[in-house]
Amino acid sequence: MEYPELLEEIFHAVQPYVGKGKVADYIPALAQIPADKFGMSLCLMDGREYVIGDADEPFSIQSVSKVFSLVLALNRLGSQVWERVGKEPSGNAFNSLVQLEYENGIPRNPFINAGALVVTDWLLGCSVDPTIELLAWLREATSNPGIHVDLEVADSEWEHRDRNAALTHFMKSCGNIHSSVDRVLRTYFEHCSIAMSCRDLARAGLLLAGHGKSPRCSDRFLTRSQAKEVNALMLTCGTYDAAGDFAFRVGLPGKSGVGGGILAIIPNLMSIAVWSPALDAKGNSMAGVEALERFTTLTGISVF
Amino acid sequence: MEYPELLEEIFHAVQPYVGKGKVADYIPALAQIPADKFGMSLCLMDGREYVIGDADEPFSIQSVSKVFSLVLALNRLGSQVWERVGKEPSGNAFNSLVQLEYENGIPRNPFINAGALVVTDWLLGCSVDPTIELLAWLREATSNPGIHVDLEVADSEWEHRDRNAALTHFMKSCGNIHSSVDRVLRTYFEHCSIAMSCRDLARAGLLLAGHGKSPRCSDRFLTRSQAKEVNALMLTCGTYDAAGDFAFRVGLPGKSGVGGGILAIIPNLMSIAVWSPALDAKGNSMAGVEALERFTTLTGISVF
Amino acid sequence: MEYPELLEEIFHAVQPYVGKGKVADYIPALAQIPADKFGMSLCLMDGREYVIGDADEPFSIQSVSKVFSLVLALNRLGSQVWERVGKEPSGNAFNSLVQLEYENGIPRNPFINAGALVVTDWLLGCSVDPTIELLAWLREATSNPGIHVDLEVADSEWEHRDRNAALTHFMKSCGNIHSSVDRVLRTYFEHCSIAMSCRDLARAGLLLAGHGKSPRCSDRFLTRSQAKEVNALMLTCGTYDAAGDFAFRVGLPGKSGVGGGILAIIPNLMSIAVWSPALDAKGNSMAGVEALERFTTLTGISVF
Amino acid sequence: MEYPELLEEIFHAVQPYVGKGKVADYIPALAQIPADKFGMSLCLMDGREYVIGDADEPFSIQSVSKVFSLVLALNRLGSQVWERVGKEPSGNAFNSLVQLEYENGIPRNPFINAGALVVTDWLLGCSVDPTIELLAWLREATSNPGIHVDLEVADSEWEHRDRNAALTHFMKSCGNIHSSVDRVLRTYFEHCSIAMSCRDLARAGLLLAGHGKSPRCSDRFLTRSQAKEVNALMLTCGTYDAAGDFAFRVGLPGKSGVGGGILAIIPNLMSIAVWSPALDAKGNSMAGVEALERFTTLTGISVF
Repeated sequence: MEYPELLEEIFHAVQPYVGKGKVADYIPALAQIPADKFGMSLCLMDGREYVIGDADEPFSIQSVSKVFSLVLALNRLGSQVWERVGKEPSGNAFNSLVQLEYENGIPRNPFINAGALVVTDWLLGCSVDPTIELLAWLREATSNPGIHVDLEVADSEWEHRDRNAALTHFMKSCGNIHSSVDRVLRTYFEHCSIAMSCRDLARAGLLLAGHGKSPRCSDRFLTRSQAKEVNALMLTCGTYDAAGDFAFRVGLPGKSGVGGGILAIIPNLMSIAVWSPALDAKGNSMAGVEALERFTTLTGISVF
Repeated sequence: MEYPELLEEIFHAVQPYVGKGKVADYIPALAQIPADKFGMSLCLMDGREYVIGDADEPFSIQSVSKVFSLVLALNRLGSQVWERVGKEPSGNAFNSLVQLEYENGIPRNPFINAGALVVTDWLLGCSVDPTIELLAWLREATSNPGIHVDLEVADSEWEHRDRNAALTHFMKSCGNIHSSVDRVLRTYFEHCSIAMSCRDLARAGLLLAGHGKSPRCSDRFLTRSQAKEVNALMLTCGTYDAAGDFAFRVGLPGKSGVGGGILAIIPNLMSIAVWSPALDAKGNSMAGVEALERFTTLTGISVF
Repeated sequence: MEYPELLEEIFHAVQPYVGKGKVADYIPALAQIPADKFGMSLCLMDGREYVIGDADEPFSIQSVSKVFSLVLALNRLGSQVWERVGKEPSGNAFNSLVQLEYENGIPRNPFINAGALVVTDWLLGCSVDPTIELLAWLREATSNPGIHVDLEVADSEWEHRDRNAALTHFMKSCGNIHSSVDRVLRTYFEHCSIAMSCRDLARAGLLLAGHGKSPRCSDRFLTRSQAKEVNALMLTCGTYDAAGDFAFRVGLPGKSGVGGGILAIIPNLMSIAVWSPALDAKGNSMAGVEALERFTTLTGISVF
Repeated sequence: MEYPELLEEIFHAVQPYVGKGKVADYIPALAQIPADKFGMSLCLMDGREYVIGDADEPFSIQSVSKVFSLVLALNRLGSQVWERVGKEPSGNAFNSLVQLEYENGIPRNPFINAGALVVTDWLLGCSVDPTIELLAWLREATSNPGIHVDLEVADSEWEHRDRNAALTHFMKSCGNIHSSVDRVLRTYFEHCSIAMSCRDLARAGLLLAGHGKSPRCSDRFLTRSQAKEVNALMLTCGTYDAAGDFAFRVGLPGKSGVGGGILAIIPNLMSIAVWSPALDAKGNSMAGVEALERFTTLTGISVF
């Protein structure tokens, strides 16, 4: 089956799941997104691109930004990053303080909130404005100069910052945050509030499918080994407390966000982005996971 | 043995312990206190008062203030207080986030930091300025109009607020803090930074020895039952993670602070204050606990 | 009010609570006990004794036995006991493995199951048959040669031993159990399954009211200081995860069991036993706690 | 580079790591294994086989057996297995009771001890003797009729069973173990004590490289989807608390044992077994992980 037919088939097959689940409502700016959206985009290493549904509608990438923040930090700091954040699955909720307390303020991995906050703090230590740098890279990688921070979402996150503020203050009390707590939080929320479409996301993900060198960019951004590490982390820790289940069902490195987006990587072949706002109980897009599972089943592609 | 001789004997007996241990150094303002101070004061229900050593030197009462904040809250709010804070020993460090997370932001008791922060939040909800009210009551109860907040200490606490900020933000994320986090912290640090001498402290404690009615004040401040509850809490939760050991060795309701002060209550008879800045591993004054243990051994007084 | 009238008044006042709550049903042998029983006994240091209701009916003392096992261990081993068990409130369920794992197999105190299992192991190390010794002492202290182990209950406990077996094996893996797991469990269940009446229990408790020397026995069994330590432990850790609440409401050292019995101590004055099988959510006799609260309210007696 | 040269190069490169680390000594039978052993075997889907070093010496496969027990359970029970054990990384030590208590006796995955004990219990429920069945399958898959249980090791495990007994009794108390605790433990220890060489292990692993159908066996043993699930689990949970690090460094599904063996899978291509008894701090063979890392680096093979 060719990719266009494949996308058609998936699009129809997932309709019963679109709008099922619960749109993230912890901040008002997200709660008002219509639940019945669905978009998907494939971006291949050879330059081909296939989209379906609402693939050109920008949405809040939320935790998918954790991949890009990490990529930027690896580009700037190399393996230094791993001095202050681990690489292991957490076995706890994405915003839990328990393991953080038992492990003296060292987050388990960069894809739980605490870990992404430390990565943000690293970036603040080596850049005047990490958000501008991140946007610059995303705009180049996607050829979309319109990628921006949705300030309404960022302000809403800031308003409801208590849980993340608790994490950041706690880590600062352990010496694992160096900038001011407010600055770390503001920057972190800016990254979470970046608005991108499925088309944008799949294009940006090509960096990881290409093992650090996107065919869309002139320069290598990560070493081959760093890119593989990010892929490995996405597989073991990319979908909150459902990483094992995602590996079972989809069998690809993936990173989800509560905005309903998921980025998945097929090394050497393509990058896939899918978006549908209604979430399952673990916080992953219900129709999105379903679409990816069908994709790997129908194509027989899986890293396993 | 009469009380003056008793104090003399204790004073000499504890000398080997004075200065042993470690002065609290988590904030600079406390770290500079000389370790070799020792004062003790007995304040009896019948009006007699006996002091020895540095009993008239003001020190930072720190967590002993948690007793006074609770007393003020019970006076203002009655049993409503217990809607948002428990009465059980915590079995965890005084500033742990673990139990707080497992129990959805309801602190175990008002004598761990999280609990005192909730009590402070209650006070902010029913008073324009709880610190002024607290000072007013302490000044009346001690006949010492000079009792004040040591602003240098309060500022130093504020500078190093991260752990307490983590606790407060976390509880706010659970809906158990209503005022702004900064206002709660500022007020809490003011209470911790109140400077009082042993003489002051013992006088203030008479309220609890008198079951809610201090012979030094015109009005009943707590009901008999409320006062007993505070005494019960001091016994089960008053000395951090060493409440059981304190009950074993001293056998009295007591509340300690990292400034080196301890307030102990002998119901119907007297209130005792002791101060020596060097702390044992659990954060209680080493010479202070020793002095209280000798007092109860020599007099045979114990609630057990 | 004289004690007989007092008991009458309490007896009538608690009737609405008798049978309320839930009879322990984790083993069949306990589940069949009628819920509507209520007995109470006061045993004074001066020899007077007052009883009401089902005060002469034997029941399964369950966790109240933890006090007697500890008393026997202190008599045989002195302060050595504290090498392998702590003295602090646990802040966790009576049969939790969590704290035990974080603290390397050292139980928080001798009144949670893990702690009593270690005390039992100590006894097995210094006695051929601790159950026979315990019964001998209880028979002397109560003048009741009929006190015995209810073998049906003990067998039922053994049948349902998995949770306690988990605790014991875990501690053995940490090196904190020396005898065989099965022998420790068997002996522990024998102690839990001792059947005594309220009259018996109050008589046996006189040892603690008398600070180690019961007026009913010829010899001193504990030092004054050991007896006070047991009383302190009963107050801080005697009623499962409701020790703070019990201290609030009753204000006396007490130890409860899931058989519905509670032993409470008024130092220097008397020992009180109460029994009613229906339990509140924390595992304490609902009518029993109510009766003790009324007793201390009506008499004004409280250690606070 | 051809495979024989590759193995030669790896063999020499890892020599500095051979014997570094610590041979498992929790049971005497394992502690006496010489630390300086090293063997490696490649078994390709096309029938080729390459070995080096001590590749024909049998060793105790220990936790690698958890893969085979799971495979057998999936063959017999299908997806029913997942009713009583999860698929998520644990974030805790392999023998921790903490998460088990918080999650009511449902183990996080089948590769921590608790999970493998539940799998064993499942097998006991659908087979007269799971050990005989497991050996039968292993003998067929490896063409080695000599594969057996090392009874000395099994007895030694039984002798030191306390931690595993605690896990099993705990789960039984939660209703998640149906057979007798002793029977589950005996069977579990038999599986851990199976002795196989690298050559055997790699041959057996071909089932997973072949997605459920080993070229060495006549029948399909798992569905394609089941085999991928096992591979996914090996990647996310296969190397104790170092799964993330293993995914980073090696980038293949792998399962290690404290006997020093590791089985790794390259889907569709080959199965690799490596053995060297000295372990790193996380319990994985130090030279073994090093050898696998070099293998994937030199060949450029990785699932990422």
